Amino acid sequence: MPESFPAGRRIILLSAQDAREAGLRPYDRVRVSLDSKSATALLSVVEGMIPPGEAVLSLELRGALEVQSGEEVTLSLAGRPKSFDAIRKKMRGEELTPEEIRAIVFDAANYEIGELEIAAFLLAQEFKGMNMNEIVALTKAMVEAGSTVDFGRPVYEKHSIGGVPGNKVSLLIVPIAASLGVFIPKTSSRAITSPAGTADTMEVLAPVEFDLEEYKEVALKAGGCIVWGGKLDLAPVDDIFIRIEHPLGIDPRSQMLASIFSKKLAVGIQGLVMDIPTGKGAKVEDLKDAEALASQFIELGRRFDVRVQCGITYGGQPVGHAVGPALEAREALEALMGGGPASLIEKSTSLAGLLLELSGVTTKGAGQDAAKEALRTGRALDKMREIIEAQGGDPKVEPGDIPVGEYRVELRAPADGYVTDVDNASIATIARLAGAPSEKGAGVLLHAKQGYKVKKGDVLLEIFAERESKLTEAYEAAVRLRPVTVEGMLLRRVPEYL
Amino acid sequence: MPESFPAGRRIILLSAQDAREAGLRPYDRVRVSLDSKSATALLSVVEGMIPPGEAVLSLELRGALEVQSGEEVTLSLAGRPKSFDAIRKKMRGEELTPEEIRAIVFDAANYEIGELEIAAFLLAQEFKGMNMNEIVALTKAMVEAGSTVDFGRPVYEKHSIGGVPGNKVSLLIVPIAASLGVFIPKTSSRAITSPAGTADTMEVLAPVEFDLEEYKEVALKAGGCIVWGGKLDLAPVDDIFIRIEHPLGIDPRSQMLASIFSKKLAVGIQGLVMDIPTGKGAKVEDLKDAEALASQFIELGRRFDVRVQCGITYGGQPVGHAVGPALEAREALEALMGGGPASLIEKSTSLAGLLLELSGVTTKGAGQDAAKEALRTGRALDKMREIIEAQGGDPKVEPGDIPVGEYRVELRAPADGYVTDVDNASIATIARLAGAPSEKGAGVLLHAKQGYKVKKGDVLLEIFAERESKLTEAYEAAVRLRPVTVEGMLLRRVPEYL
Repeated sequence: MPESFPAGRRIILLSAQDAREAGLRPYDRVRVSLDSKSATALLSVVEGMIPPGEAVLSLELRGALEVQSGEEVTLSLAGRPKSFDAIRKKMRGEELTPEEIRAIVFDAANYEIGELEIAAFLLAQEFKGMNMNEIVALTKAMVEAGSTVDFGRPVYEKHSIGGVPGNKVSLLIVPIAASLGVFIPKTSSRAITSPAGTADTMEVLAPVEFDLEEYKEVALKAGGCIVWGGKLDLAPVDDIFIRIEHPLGIDPRSQMLASIFSKKLAVGIQGLVMDIPTGKGAKVEDLKDAEALASQFIELGRRFDVRVQCGITYGGQPVGHAVGPALEAREALEALMGGGPASLIEKSTSLAGLLLELSGVTTKGAGQDAAKEALRTGRALDKMREIIEAQGGDPKVEPGDIPVGEYRVELRAPADGYVTDVDNASIATIARLAGAPSEKGAGVLLHAKQGYKVKKGDVLLEIFAERESKLTEAYEAAVRLRPVTVEGMLLRRVPEYL
Repeated sequence: MPESFPAGRRIILLSAQDAREAGLRPYDRVRVSLDSKSATALLSVVEGMIPPGEAVLSLELRGALEVQSGEEVTLSLAGRPKSFDAIRKKMRGEELTPEEIRAIVFDAANYEIGELEIAAFLLAQEFKGMNMNEIVALTKAMVEAGSTVDFGRPVYEKHSIGGVPGNKVSLLIVPIAASLGVFIPKTSSRAITSPAGTADTMEVLAPVEFDLEEYKEVALKAGGCIVWGGKLDLAPVDDIFIRIEHPLGIDPRSQMLASIFSKKLAVGIQGLVMDIPTGKGAKVEDLKDAEALASQFIELGRRFDVRVQCGITYGGQPVGHAVGPALEAREALEALMGGGPASLIEKSTSLAGLLLELSGVTTKGAGQDAAKEALRTGRALDKMREIIEAQGGDPKVEPGDIPVGEYRVELRAPADGYVTDVDNASIATIARLAGAPSEKGAGVLLHAKQGYKVKKGDVLLEIFAERESKLTEAYEAAVRLRPVTVEGMLLRRVPEYL
């Protein structure tokens, strides 16, 4: 056996003899201690591979204890973690106190509770919900369980609840707002289920991975930035929650509110513009639900003295034409240079306008015009080049310099008619199968969107891939999924063989 | 790195370079294939410990693929398992079809879904419930996902839903029924949260671990047996479910019904007597709930052509006086020899009586008398000795031969009065801290139970342990928990320091 190995969790391997003598059983939760440090781990009992008196620790457990080879650890059966009763209480649908919520968050952050307990907590939120007092406590605890930044000046942020492919608007909003003096040190995520997170797209133009000190420096230098939040230790327990929500396919509202807000509070925001894409296939499907969510964001802001503006935007199809990191980066750059699709410009300037009004740069009602002006005059483009340079990218980058996948295939309209639907989920699946987000050049370029009039044989969309095998996979999915619906199109032929 | 290691889950370790080239990310669910076999696993990406082109598989994954060192496996991103949508559907509270339930059970049995998805399924059952059609389908699928036995003769079984310490009644019921010709090849569990499962207690008298063939042989030889179900592969997915329910502290009713029934159906039962202990601190606290559960067992039996009789028994305090494997085995043997506490005899003979009536050995109403007669005449004791011998134990064993913990301490009554409460959970905790069930001689002997009149200084209970340190732990807990309440006893002194 090796001295250690990575296992995605804290495990300690013990000989069957030692386990028996300690009165421990396989899969027991055990407390492993070294001097003043201790951590809980899963007990794995091994027959005949480990000599009695020795133990093998997974890297995750080793890291927690900072133990060296040869050092002696002690083991005992771990009791229920103290947050366990609180999780049970939420499972019964009862309101948790701030102390109980804090215990859960810190136990999760310190790996004192395992994936199963965290899953139970998240599922209990999904099934039973949380009230605003609980959400406030959850947000606060998540901030406290991580690092915070003090920029020494008013901070503004923009965030989308996500769920719509091609949503590269931050690459326009940040430079627009920053070019007019709004300090916006944007942190963003990488894609979890989507073909490109804002961080994945920005990374095409400049590095996005910084530690907390570098982040502070970069943001202050350019008056704004677009970096990956993953290395900043801002509300880091969120990453643990997301890793568990994802396979379960859940996104509890209360956790979403707390997760977004905690990351923003950790950088000391005064104001926040929330983008709530709404429509078929988006996270929020109808306007009433979007308004309810908006009220929750505003109320949460009120509790923390943060001014919040919510923009409910159309999320029933991808934003702009490009989906996938490189294609999106190219489209964003084109838009900053005066080109780009009208829908992208419209959405970006309207949300940027809210930021300008919220921060007092313009009066109410004058924000979007000021944003458009910043685009038209090239101020926003100049600021973007400044940001790219501050992050270590090439400030002279042109859209044509950005490499996209060399393997391409087109999907064409099977009949004349109007495009009635472009399905978010199908487009995301196709782009991911093509290789996005890890292969930056992979993705989908939409040639037709809702309302476009197309003739039979017109190109509806183009798939880009960096590898032929991925292109084939994505193409086969596209043929099966029919992501673009043309009115008048034969949806199915019955019988198929005629 | 080693060639393999046990990790409690299916993991594949890959070099960062290989993962990048395959477009895979840490913690991705991947499908690992070898020839016609494939299995899903968690991807663990390792920097610098594994050469590109090589992979390390956890023992659990190796076993699934039956792969040898040097063989080549292929990897791809695993899609959502097919049962995933069904789990989501149950999370929304909708009724599942038999096909959907079957998919979940088989995916769980084959490790196609992971612990998190299984947790979601069990929590959805806990929160949303299942109707009888779903429970029938769940039961059926659990039977089909394991082995079955055909004894070639009518089979009867007895089972308790558990939750009450000291419930050694099976050690009386099985030999009583078998001595009168009822074939009862009892399978039982080891303790999960209790101080002694029936298998743990029986193991004091004879071996209980057999494979399916040995089990069949042993049971047919003596006309009955008491063995551990863990090695028999009867509805084995239940073990996976239990391993996840336990840390979550849940026991969904629908899953409990299906788990119990599937293990019994796998051995081809015609009739089943269910013990439903009811009372404060038991799994079922009030009579109405117990009756509802009884109806569900009877209805489930009707669907499978199994005659079910439920005995609702008093579960508000431990059964008999002894708690812990050796102490319980001794008490059971004493009862078979004509001694033992009246409450134990009463409960055992009434449940055995139900079995005798159900199987047609006696007429309705005559069962308990026949059971008492089998005890009185020594027939049941003879049968027990026969069973012990068939399982490989010493048939001549006497109660005094059974070693119990040599470290002992007594708890005494702090005042005169009547015992009003003996708390199940506290007794279980004390017995477990003393070392039960893994240290067979550890446990608690109650000298007073509800209704007993005690004088100040009388012994209320005695704690037994095999190790002094465990005795101290258990004693400290007993002083804190006050497991036995004497009416008139000062519950708290205020202020404490006077």
